[in-house]
Amino acid sequence: MTTLHNDRFLRALLRQPVDYTPIWMMRQAGRYLPEYRATREKAGSFMDLCKNPELACEVTLQPLDRFPLDAAILFSDILTIPDAMGLGLYFETGEGPRFQHPIRSSADVERLGVPDPEDDLGYVMDAVRTIRRELAGRVPLIGFSGSPWTLATYMIEGGSAKVFARSKAMMYDQPALLHQVLGKLADAVTAYLNAQIAAGAQAVMIFDTWGGALHPLAYREFSLDYMGRIVGGLKREAEDRKVPVILFTKGGGQWLEIMAQTGCDALGLDWTTDIGDARARVGHRVALQGNLDPCALYASPETIRREVAGILAAYGNGSGHVFNLGHGINPDVPPEHAAALVEAVHELSRPYHAEKSTAAV
Amino acid sequence: MTTLHNDRFLRALLRQPVDYTPIWMMRQAGRYLPEYRATREKAGSFMDLCKNPELACEVTLQPLDRFPLDAAILFSDILTIPDAMGLGLYFETGEGPRFQHPIRSSADVERLGVPDPEDDLGYVMDAVRTIRRELAGRVPLIGFSGSPWTLATYMIEGGSAKVFARSKAMMYDQPALLHQVLGKLADAVTAYLNAQIAAGAQAVMIFDTWGGALHPLAYREFSLDYMGRIVGGLKREAEDRKVPVILFTKGGGQWLEIMAQTGCDALGLDWTTDIGDARARVGHRVALQGNLDPCALYASPETIRREVAGILAAYGNGSGHVFNLGHGINPDVPPEHAAALVEAVHELSRPYHAEKSTAAV
Repeated sequence: MTTLHNDRFLRALLRQPVDYTPIWMMRQAGRYLPEYRATREKAGSFMDLCKNPELACEVTLQPLDRFPLDAAILFSDILTIPDAMGLGLYFETGEGPRFQHPIRSSADVERLGVPDPEDDLGYVMDAVRTIRRELAGRVPLIGFSGSPWTLATYMIEGGSAKVFARSKAMMYDQPALLHQVLGKLADAVTAYLNAQIAAGAQAVMIFDTWGGALHPLAYREFSLDYMGRIVGGLKREAEDRKVPVILFTKGGGQWLEIMAQTGCDALGLDWTTDIGDARARVGHRVALQGNLDPCALYASPETIRREVAGILAAYGNGSGHVFNLGHGINPDVPPEHAAALVEAVHELSRPYHAEKSTAAV
Repeated sequence: MTTLHNDRFLRALLRQPVDYTPIWMMRQAGRYLPEYRATREKAGSFMDLCKNPELACEVTLQPLDRFPLDAAILFSDILTIPDAMGLGLYFETGEGPRFQHPIRSSADVERLGVPDPEDDLGYVMDAVRTIRRELAGRVPLIGFSGSPWTLATYMIEGGSAKVFARSKAMMYDQPALLHQVLGKLADAVTAYLNAQIAAGAQAVMIFDTWGGALHPLAYREFSLDYMGRIVGGLKREAEDRKVPVILFTKGGGQWLEIMAQTGCDALGLDWTTDIGDARARVGHRVALQGNLDPCALYASPETIRREVAGILAAYGNGSGHVFNLGHGINPDVPPEHAAALVEAVHELSRPYHAEKSTAAV
């Protein structure tokens, strides 16, 4: 157990006082960084990179060497679980992810097993352990998983989709079968995140990328309930600290209240919700992570600074805010713009944490 | 002026009593119909079809010949205005729309003129007149336009986009320039919709397909305010009837209250908002149009019926509801499923309109 030198991220997630607002960026280890592209080239395919703990560690640390970020996030893919379930994940150049054996029948569903994290996904746990060692306590490490609904869409569609024709056809016509898929995935995600925590993840985040494509009742039944089940099954203490859990449904701005009821510690916000309004709705229950439009990073450093100021002012005084983008950083953003973002957050947020009396809000 | 035989659609938009809930489907004249594909084949390109009033009329009427829909919608494209502004619209096979001369500089913006609807978009007005003649009062005809923000994204990106890198870079770094584009578009859309009304459109709808990609403050400043300006500039009476205006921002479920303040008559809802909640929020001010997930049409007719029942029950008693999908019908939906939808809405909605006392809610 190493000493954690910068714990602002963990403290903010637990709404404990901090001296400035911590920041990390979704997809911070990614294609916008030339050093990432170089490592990716060296690795071979994208999955080769994910499955090589040393290289996964290398790209995880790259953004930290450039910017004073307050958290690292495990470099991996959300589709490792379906891959370990035997669906045969592969990536076509220029296309999104694909599965060789998508779910097409109830027999396919029957065959799905819950992977053992150390046996079947050992490369992820090895990456977590390697990164923790190399981080040496600089900042906390975030583990993550896709949500059951999000994973199910890829497994049923056979890859990326915009319309979710097959997944929603199953939802409407064979809800019991979809529940069977989601139940197995909830068990798999729970075991996977607990194994990441055991291996050294100091916070975990569940990415529900496609929950926002559902009707509110369907969201609750087919996405949120399974995330709640996962939250309830997590071992949320390690190394004598609480391990905070962040829930992020892209497009979920209408459902923050019911998301906050799952027992998670924080909600990720995309940029279509005002963070001040979100705080008024659920800030007494959970911390908030977000929520700059990733496209703001196409603007000049001066404009980025102005937008950061707006979000910090909207959130207001006190802890409970982790700055982030509302979605992953885009591959064509200049790295200097990311630098301007991190600097602006650290600098402009200090006044909001100055008063001890307001920090405990 | 012909007698309108079925005015349920117009009455529901004005929250006047009806005997059943009227329905139409976004993109009801479209690729899911074999007869549409045949006419499209005959026309040549997609724009050839839009620019041929006789064929545009033919495809507009096709779904009405199959299903007892309660409204027709002009067959056209939202990008006719930028095309008339000289940007050179074209369609690549298998790709979305493209512009030969996208907006790249302030000089490009200066050059943009406001098209004269009858001179520069006469083919649209001819289509409206032709369709009205051929409809012969069966159902009302809906005219439409894209919203200024939505049109601007295509004009600045040069075609379809997912991320809006260029449009948002302009929004963040050159807001005055974007306001100049939007101001010209608001003038153009106002003139265009007024000309459609003069030619015979009996209701109009503004499609803000990409407003949901904005931060709430940006939505108000760069999309909603311009739609409000358009609503204020419309001639909302024709043939001794009110011409209702419908506003639809896809992904706008968080902003219904401010949308309803524009003075429009109805809001279109996508399927991520519960229509009962929406009615509680804004139903005293506006009618609601929606909001079945288009993917529900992949399900069996029995399931479609169950989903229709759910939406009708959520809306509840009385007028003010036009049934629709939450977005355009998908090209691979079986036409019989659309038939099941229309039948279910007409049949299952009658009890909600039975009581004179509740119909006036």
